[in-house]
Amino acid sequence: MEGITGKELILAASAIGAGLAMIAGLGPGIGQGIAAGKGAEAVGRQPEAQGDILRTMLLGQAVAETTGIYSLVIALILLFANPLIRLL
Amino acid sequence: MEGITGKELILAASAIGAGLAMIAGLGPGIGQGIAAGKGAEAVGRQPEAQGDILRTMLLGQAVAETTGIYSLVIALILLFANPLIRLL
Amino acid sequence: MEGITGKELILAASAIGAGLAMIAGLGPGIGQGIAAGKGAEAVGRQPEAQGDILRTMLLGQAVAETTGIYSLVIALILLFANPLIRLL
Amino acid sequence: MEGITGKELILAASAIGAGLAMIAGLGPGIGQGIAAGKGAEAVGRQPEAQGDILRTMLLGQAVAETTGIYSLVIALILLFANPLIRLL
Amino acid sequence: MEGITGKELILAASAIGAGLAMIAGLGPGIGQGIAAGKGAEAVGRQPEAQGDILRTMLLGQAVAETTGIYSLVIALILLFANPLIRLL
Amino acid sequence: MEGITGKELILAASAIGAGLAMIAGLGPGIGQGIAAGKGAEAVGRQPEAQGDILRTMLLGQAVAETTGIYSLVIALILLFANPLIRLL
Amino acid sequence: MEGITGKELILAASAIGAGLAMIAGLGPGIGQGIAAGKGAEAVGRQPEAQGDILRTMLLGQAVAETTGIYSLVIALILLFANPLIRLL
Amino acid sequence: MEGITGKELILAASAIGAGLAMIAGLGPGIGQGIAAGKGAEAVGRQPEAQGDILRTMLLGQAVAETTGIYSLVIALILLFANPLIRLL
Amino acid sequence: MEGITGKELILAASAIGAGLAMIAGLGPGIGQGIAAGKGAEAVGRQPEAQGDILRTMLLGQAVAETTGIYSLVIALILLFANPLIRLL
Amino acid sequence: MEGITGKELILAASAIGAGLAMIAGLGPGIGQGIAAGKGAEAVGRQPEAQGDILRTMLLGQAVAETTGIYSLVIALILLFANPLIRLL
Amino acid sequence: MEGITGKELILAASAIGAGLAMIAGLGPGIGQGIAAGKGAEAVGRQPEAQGDILRTMLLGQAVAETTGIYSLVIALILLFANPLIRLL
Amino acid sequence: MEGITGKELILAASAIGAGLAMIAGLGPGIGQGIAAGKGAEAVGRQPEAQGDILRTMLLGQAVAETTGIYSLVIALILLFANPLIRLL
Amino acid sequence: MEGITGKELILAASAIGAGLAMIAGLGPGIGQGIAAGKGAEAVGRQPEAQGDILRTMLLGQAVAETTGIYSLVIALILLFANPLIRLL
Amino acid sequence: MEGITGKELILAASAIGAGLAMIAGLGPGIGQGIAAGKGAEAVGRQPEAQGDILRTMLLGQAVAETTGIYSLVIALILLFANPLIRLL
Repeated sequence: MEGITGKELILAASAIGAGLAMIAGLGPGIGQGIAAGKGAEAVGRQPEAQGDILRTMLLGQAVAETTGIYSLVIALILLFANPLIRLL
Repeated sequence: MEGITGKELILAASAIGAGLAMIAGLGPGIGQGIAAGKGAEAVGRQPEAQGDILRTMLLGQAVAETTGIYSLVIALILLFANPLIRLL
Repeated sequence: MEGITGKELILAASAIGAGLAMIAGLGPGIGQGIAAGKGAEAVGRQPEAQGDILRTMLLGQAVAETTGIYSLVIALILLFANPLIRLL
Repeated sequence: MEGITGKELILAASAIGAGLAMIAGLGPGIGQGIAAGKGAEAVGRQPEAQGDILRTMLLGQAVAETTGIYSLVIALILLFANPLIRLL
Repeated sequence: MEGITGKELILAASAIGAGLAMIAGLGPGIGQGIAAGKGAEAVGRQPEAQGDILRTMLLGQAVAETTGIYSLVIALILLFANPLIRLL
Repeated sequence: MEGITGKELILAASAIGAGLAMIAGLGPGIGQGIAAGKGAEAVGRQPEAQGDILRTMLLGQAVAETTGIYSLVIALILLFANPLIRLL
Repeated sequence: MEGITGKELILAASAIGAGLAMIAGLGPGIGQGIAAGKGAEAVGRQPEAQGDILRTMLLGQAVAETTGIYSLVIALILLFANPLIRLL
Repeated sequence: MEGITGKELILAASAIGAGLAMIAGLGPGIGQGIAAGKGAEAVGRQPEAQGDILRTMLLGQAVAETTGIYSLVIALILLFANPLIRLL
Repeated sequence: MEGITGKELILAASAIGAGLAMIAGLGPGIGQGIAAGKGAEAVGRQPEAQGDILRTMLLGQAVAETTGIYSLVIALILLFANPLIRLL
Repeated sequence: MEGITGKELILAASAIGAGLAMIAGLGPGIGQGIAAGKGAEAVGRQPEAQGDILRTMLLGQAVAETTGIYSLVIALILLFANPLIRLL
Repeated sequence: MEGITGKELILAASAIGAGLAMIAGLGPGIGQGIAAGKGAEAVGRQPEAQGDILRTMLLGQAVAETTGIYSLVIALILLFANPLIRLL
Repeated sequence: MEGITGKELILAASAIGAGLAMIAGLGPGIGQGIAAGKGAEAVGRQPEAQGDILRTMLLGQAVAETTGIYSLVIALILLFANPLIRLL
Repeated sequence: MEGITGKELILAASAIGAGLAMIAGLGPGIGQGIAAGKGAEAVGRQPEAQGDILRTMLLGQAVAETTGIYSLVIALILLFANPLIRLL
Repeated sequence: MEGITGKELILAASAIGAGLAMIAGLGPGIGQGIAAGKGAEAVGRQPEAQGDILRTMLLGQAVAETTGIYSLVIALILLFANPLIRLL
């Protein structure tokens, strides 16, 4: 691989790094799914409290979403802004 | 591998990175399945609240879907738009 | 491996990437199976609500299916359309 | 490995990729087994609702089967149609 | 490894790929075992419904078997028909 | 490793592949053990239904055995019949 | 890879390191999702205590968020400020 | 490793393969242990049904043993009969 | 990689080490999330004891935070102070 | 490693293979421990049935022991009898 | 990597070793979080015993903290005191 | 590593193999701990049956110990008697 | 890496080995945390028995601490006393 | 690494092997922690049986400790007595 410059190696490592970062997304996926199940169950028991349950569930899920978004942000930065090659 | 340029190495790494990112999809798959089970159970207990249960379940699942979509987005960017090679 | 061009390396990496992406399919498989079990249980308890339970279960499973389909899409793109080699 | 062409490397990677894709099959295997257990349990409790339980279980399992079939499809494409080498 | 041709590398990769594919078999093994346990338990509770329970359990297990058979099929294809070397 | 021919590499890969395939055996081992425990428990509760419970448990376990046998078959084929080297 | 300088190697390692750090995000994702589910359940039981439950849930989730933020911070430092190359 | 022939490489791979195959033994170990615990519990509850419980437990464990024996068989074949080197 | 000095290798290893250390953050994330869920549940049952529950939950979470902070500290030291290169 | 003969490579691989095989021992360790706990619990409830419980527990554990012994046997064969080098 | 001395290799390995050691921190994180949840739950049930519950929880968590601190100590020693290079 | 003989490679592999074998010890550690917990619980309920409970627990744990001892034996043989180098 | 002596390789391996050994610390961390939670729960139920509960919990945790201390001891020996290089 | 003798390679492998062996310590850590929790719970229920519970718990934990001690012994032998280099 003699024709490869350091800049190209950094960009190839960024593609792998972005893929690794996205794996974190399975955490919120499992957690929010459990929340959705518990929410549906709670609504089934107290349909009159549906608004409150839904609001609580969505608020809680929104917080659980954050780490998934962090990963997305890091992956997007690695792909579009890639500050690493600016440091060269 | 003397005939390989840096650009080609980046694209090969992108194919692996896209595959790694998609693995996150098993999280929403498990979580949403649990939600579907809980929802069916709740409907079975209170069929008259089916509309509310369904709405809650689908809303909760929609949020749980997001991290799976993030992974899809990153994989599609890696494959179609690949901003990394524009940084060369 | 002197006779290997960069294009060929990308295609080999795509075959591995497609395989990695498909692993995500075990998530929906587990989740939807749990939903099927809960659905059958619920129908057994309230056979008269079978239609509602079935509809809820299938709707919930359909959402859980999505991440599995995303993986399939990425794998098919890698195999048939492979946009990476168009970027060369 | 000087005598190996790029086409051969792609085909070797396809064999590994097909094996990786099939691993996803353990998900539906676990999930559908849980469904079968729950179904048998439910039939044991309400033998008169056997038809409904069976129909629900099989429908749910059929959906859970899909990601296993996706993996099979990708593996068969890699082995028989291998579109990657057509891209050369 | 200078004396190795590409055809031989593909066949060696096929042996590893077949082994990887078979690992999926642990999924149906666990799932069907759980079903067997639940079935035996249900028969113990309602021996008079044994026929129905058995039929449900076996039907459910048969579906759970499928992904294990898919893996077997892919492994057998890799070993006996190996379409990859026909693509050379 | 200059003295190694491709045929020998395939056979070495077959030994590893056979070992990998056998790992699937831990699935049926866990599943059937759970079934054995549930069966013994059920017999303890209804000793008069022992015949029915035993028959159900053994039938269920027999199905769970299949993926373990598939792995054994693939490993035996790799070791004794090795169709891969016939493809040379 | 003769054309690669040490600075470039550090930056490539930073891209991988940032991806590894983000994997921690699956922890808060699972934990906060469980909290969201428990919160929705609690609100469903005591809708009149919704304010208190929500406050407790959000406070608890905020603490659980911290380790996800730590990972984001480390990844951002690796990408934007990269103090490692200043140490050269 | 110039002094190594292909036959020796196959035998070295067989030693690793035999070790990998034996790992499957942890499945039956866990499963049969659970069965033993359930059996002891059932005997403690109905000591008069000890014979029946024991027979069911042992029969169930015997089936669970099979995949462990398959692994042993493959390992013994790899070590003592090693059919791979006869294929040379 | 002839142009790489030992100092640069240490700094590249530090980037990987910092990423590995941050993975520990998934532990507190899961644990604190469980605590948040239990806290919300407890407040829902005894809203009048909210102050005490909250204080206990936050105190307990604060202790659980510590190992996440240790990882952050080690990562920050590796990135900003890097004492390893002072030992040269 | 020019001074290494094939026989020595086989013996080195045997040492690793023996170590891998012994890992299976964690299965019986967990399973038998669960059995011991269930047995002690059952004796605590029906001390008069201690003999029967003990006999069932020990018999069940003896079967669970087998796969651990298989691994020991394979490891001992690899170390003391090593049939692989006789095949040279 | 001809310009790298042994001292530098040791320091690079120390950076990786420190990162590996910190991974242990996920254990106390999960455990202490469970303790915090149980503590909050207990305080919610007996608010009058809050002092005693808190003291017990904190004492127990303090002990659980120790292995996290051990890891921190080893990582700090590797980074700041690095006794390994004094052994040269 | 030209100065390394085959005997030395075998001994180095034995050190790794011994370490791998000892990992099995985590199985009995978990299992016996569960037994200890169940035993203490049972004694707390029937202090008058302490002798019987203790005897059952210790007997069960003794059996669970065996696979840990097997690993110790293999590791000690690898370290002290190392029959592999006698096979040279 | 021509400038590296064997002594330096041993010390580098010691740094990695110390990091691996510390990973064991996650076991006591989880276990002791569970104990802390159970202790707090028990104190909440019987505040008058707090002394006895605390003493039992701390004694039990002290034993659970031991394997974490063993790892610390091995890591400290590897770092400070490193008997391996005295064996040269 | 031309300056490295076989003795030094064995000692480096011993450092890694000792680290691997210590990982087993997480098993007793989890198990004994569960025992400590169950013991504290039991004492809380029957404070008058504290002596008996404590004795049972400590005896059970002592047995669970053994595999952790085995690992310590193997690691200490590898570090201090290292019989492998005496076999040279």
